[in-house]
Amino acid sequence: MPNCHWRHKPRAKIPASPGRRPGLPPLPMNKGNAGNFLEDFRLGQVFRHAIPRTLTIADQALYAALYGSRFALQSSEPFARALGYPAAPLDDLLVFHIVFGRSVADVSLNAIANLGLAECRFLAPVYPGDTLSATSEVIGLRQVSSGKAGIVYVRTSGSNQHGVVVLSYVRWVLIPKREAESPAPPEHVPVLAASADPTGFDCPTLEQWDTAIAGAPYRLGDYRNGEKIDHVDGVTVEEAEHQLATRLYQNPARVHFNKLAHDPRLVYGGHAMSIARALSFNGLGSAFRVAAINSARHVAPLHAGATVFAWSEILDVRRLRAHVGALRIVTRATVDEPCFSFPVAGPSLILELDYWAVVPAA
Amino acid sequence: MPNCHWRHKPRAKIPASPGRRPGLPPLPMNKGNAGNFLEDFRLGQVFRHAIPRTLTIADQALYAALYGSRFALQSSEPFARALGYPAAPLDDLLVFHIVFGRSVADVSLNAIANLGLAECRFLAPVYPGDTLSATSEVIGLRQVSSGKAGIVYVRTSGSNQHGVVVLSYVRWVLIPKREAESPAPPEHVPVLAASADPTGFDCPTLEQWDTAIAGAPYRLGDYRNGEKIDHVDGVTVEEAEHQLATRLYQNPARVHFNKLAHDPRLVYGGHAMSIARALSFNGLGSAFRVAAINSARHVAPLHAGATVFAWSEILDVRRLRAHVGALRIVTRATVDEPCFSFPVAGPSLILELDYWAVVPAA
Amino acid sequence: MPNCHWRHKPRAKIPASPGRRPGLPPLPMNKGNAGNFLEDFRLGQVFRHAIPRTLTIADQALYAALYGSRFALQSSEPFARALGYPAAPLDDLLVFHIVFGRSVADVSLNAIANLGLAECRFLAPVYPGDTLSATSEVIGLRQVSSGKAGIVYVRTSGSNQHGVVVLSYVRWVLIPKREAESPAPPEHVPVLAASADPTGFDCPTLEQWDTAIAGAPYRLGDYRNGEKIDHVDGVTVEEAEHQLATRLYQNPARVHFNKLAHDPRLVYGGHAMSIARALSFNGLGSAFRVAAINSARHVAPLHAGATVFAWSEILDVRRLRAHVGALRIVTRATVDEPCFSFPVAGPSLILELDYWAVVPAA
Repeated sequence: MPNCHWRHKPRAKIPASPGRRPGLPPLPMNKGNAGNFLEDFRLGQVFRHAIPRTLTIADQALYAALYGSRFALQSSEPFARALGYPAAPLDDLLVFHIVFGRSVADVSLNAIANLGLAECRFLAPVYPGDTLSATSEVIGLRQVSSGKAGIVYVRTSGSNQHGVVVLSYVRWVLIPKREAESPAPPEHVPVLAASADPTGFDCPTLEQWDTAIAGAPYRLGDYRNGEKIDHVDGVTVEEAEHQLATRLYQNPARVHFNKLAHDPRLVYGGHAMSIARALSFNGLGSAFRVAAINSARHVAPLHAGATVFAWSEILDVRRLRAHVGALRIVTRATVDEPCFSFPVAGPSLILELDYWAVVPAA
Repeated sequence: MPNCHWRHKPRAKIPASPGRRPGLPPLPMNKGNAGNFLEDFRLGQVFRHAIPRTLTIADQALYAALYGSRFALQSSEPFARALGYPAAPLDDLLVFHIVFGRSVADVSLNAIANLGLAECRFLAPVYPGDTLSATSEVIGLRQVSSGKAGIVYVRTSGSNQHGVVVLSYVRWVLIPKREAESPAPPEHVPVLAASADPTGFDCPTLEQWDTAIAGAPYRLGDYRNGEKIDHVDGVTVEEAEHQLATRLYQNPARVHFNKLAHDPRLVYGGHAMSIARALSFNGLGSAFRVAAINSARHVAPLHAGATVFAWSEILDVRRLRAHVGALRIVTRATVDEPCFSFPVAGPSLILELDYWAVVPAA
Repeated sequence: MPNCHWRHKPRAKIPASPGRRPGLPPLPMNKGNAGNFLEDFRLGQVFRHAIPRTLTIADQALYAALYGSRFALQSSEPFARALGYPAAPLDDLLVFHIVFGRSVADVSLNAIANLGLAECRFLAPVYPGDTLSATSEVIGLRQVSSGKAGIVYVRTSGSNQHGVVVLSYVRWVLIPKREAESPAPPEHVPVLAASADPTGFDCPTLEQWDTAIAGAPYRLGDYRNGEKIDHVDGVTVEEAEHQLATRLYQNPARVHFNKLAHDPRLVYGGHAMSIARALSFNGLGSAFRVAAINSARHVAPLHAGATVFAWSEILDVRRLRAHVGALRIVTRATVDEPCFSFPVAGPSLILELDYWAVVPAA
């Protein structure tokens, strides 16, 4: 289980599952959804997730207020149009969170831990007014050694109202059994690519890119393999902030909201990703779109009150075509420790995000 | 006073009323509005509340972030249009809070307690771009036994920019006298219906309702009288959250914002209603619109730091017409106590919301 | 240094400047922007600030939720149109914060203190959909007596997508030297007007102003020089609130976000201005637009947990033309002390905002 870095222990007793409460009259089973357990997943099973979500400029404004993102593409309509976009697309990670949010009620309401993310590709821009739906297919199952839980692998796709897939990724989560004595599911562990291929990334020619307006003086040629960038700033996380964000994404996972059951509340891992990405503007401001996420390892939990810092290392510098390049970046986020010494391990590390970003080339 | 469940004691001295401060030069009276006292209300008096409010998709997005509501009608433009709506209507309780907010400066700036709500009917959908105005008529007055305060009953109506009434309700509040020795107003207590009639609720045919997209498998026929539903999840309330919400509604009541005068700050009762309604999606996700509120009893105050849970009991199951039904629901919210044992009383209970919701029927 | 009222002492060591860290391989200099120091400024230097910002109805809704502003012009499209505006303009202070936010990365990322603001004029309304860019010119430099820092004066202008200047102001900040031994810059202190002239303020005829709809019964003639207005209400500031606001403005100054380095975090001075302005609605609700800010003195820092109160004194009452007048107002904000005794000094005072507001005249 190479990507299993930590597990959350719920501190409050989970209510008895529906239909088994003693002393209740024979009314209909409780209609409150208690989520799926390991027994509920089968290889090849497809979930058509409920509640499509229309995204608007208001979602983008809330995203801006939540993370302080300063990438010019999402900040300025004229900047986006000058590049050839029909409008300013929504932030890629906002799209990720919305698609992810669709899947939680079916996939991970009872997750003990989000173990990994792979093969995540952003396939088409999403614009204000678009409506996203999501589906997930179970592509792997494996009981863990305790016998009380298992790993469920799903491939999730998000599509817009025209049926165009805008996002696709694999994630795997640790899910408890409903009954400890249930038999193990047939084991199948999918083979996943270590890195997505950014070559075909859908992006206008960046001939009109203006570094002065973008607030980032660097282009592809200014970066080199192994380069390290301290993003300098730190941001202290508040309960209200991560709760507002996670609700905006309609992600109902209980660990994020219920202090009585989970004290301290666990910050949604995607919130940490967005904080790190926003901090990375300072040094990576020209890395203006996320093409793909190769992996996201939530090495340790994040809780409100902690101050998040981030630094990045350039793993690959690749020219895609005229004026368009891509950087493979690993961004590491820490809590309560500035990153000027570029920490790669230790108790302060919470996140390793390995991704491809598109940058303008000369 | 059957609905008077608790009263808030302001802990800081209220500033002396204008014009009576010693030692001030004879300048104009202080223009700061200190609000109305019992002496200022007369039976039949009509307030045309100030500050119309244009509602937009941004108000709906903020509402989503504040409560995590997942009803498909407000989440998805295509879902709303498929049902026959011209656009996704705004959340009913958002409309309620906006209309309520208009009335506070005239009616309840000095309220000691919000005592009750009745005959609240949602008469027309409100869409992004609509502008709401409100009026209130004083329909009842009664001095309480202490002689220092009285109950003021108002019927409040909210209208859109076309003059269409979108919401109407009666509420009653406990208002202190300006001068303890003022004479009692003539007593008049209005007779109020115990339940509103949902029959004429304005709603498209729900023939196109898709339970899979809505994220709720149940239709009218799946519910039965006396059924109890535990909404399972809990959400911990933060100061920043309820303040953001209450300001969004332009509700200036002091008890919500001023820790110096009211420690702990009192959460706006409508915030608790919206939390409970959002939690109720888990089990009542097909109860997609509020037709009427029969009563809302704020049994105990809510403060930040508490974790809110909710459960619902079905009081009535009524078919309105083909494909359209209504459930009479009482949703009870508790703090710091999960609801799987369906508590109806006790110190954890904060809210009893008796309302009619519209649901699709087969 | 008459306007230097307080200075913030960072408690955490600032990371060593780029390129001077021992033991690092000779990779490119850290691309993270550490901000400008005194040595980086020259008289006459012009910064064309990066990252234009398209403002929308969502920014206005967030502004409303953050401050509870109730001015009818920003709340109601029909009210704005009835006055002759083509649409409801964005709140003036929101425009100020957005323009200010553009300038921080170049001007004040390392500021020890914001010392002053002058000659701030709002020259044209800004509407949802407009995109603002900003430039700043260095108009003054002066080393302070310690020799370790200096005052930098800039004139900042904000323009919309048509190149129309919508806002212009001078501010001055205390900036540390990178190296304590650097020579002093040539001294030049600009002469600044004590008050801006509101005469030419761009405003429709206010013939259609409706005091009842505006929620403010007073017109120009109801105010008189020397009049004092207690705005009555208090509002307790939360960390999440000021962080959301400051990020919405894309103001990346570190002191606002990083508890590890700045404990307690310093609230952005503009947040205090907006809180005071929103409180001032109660008594100054007809002062519906800000024409100019003569000065803004942040007398003491504001931190989360404090409760802000405000009162205003009328310094001048001026008729501009038929139906249009202007009030020169000084609004003073305090923390943890109500303002009914109109405090002008003392430890509770945090802000003195001297500005011209436009009001309807009979």
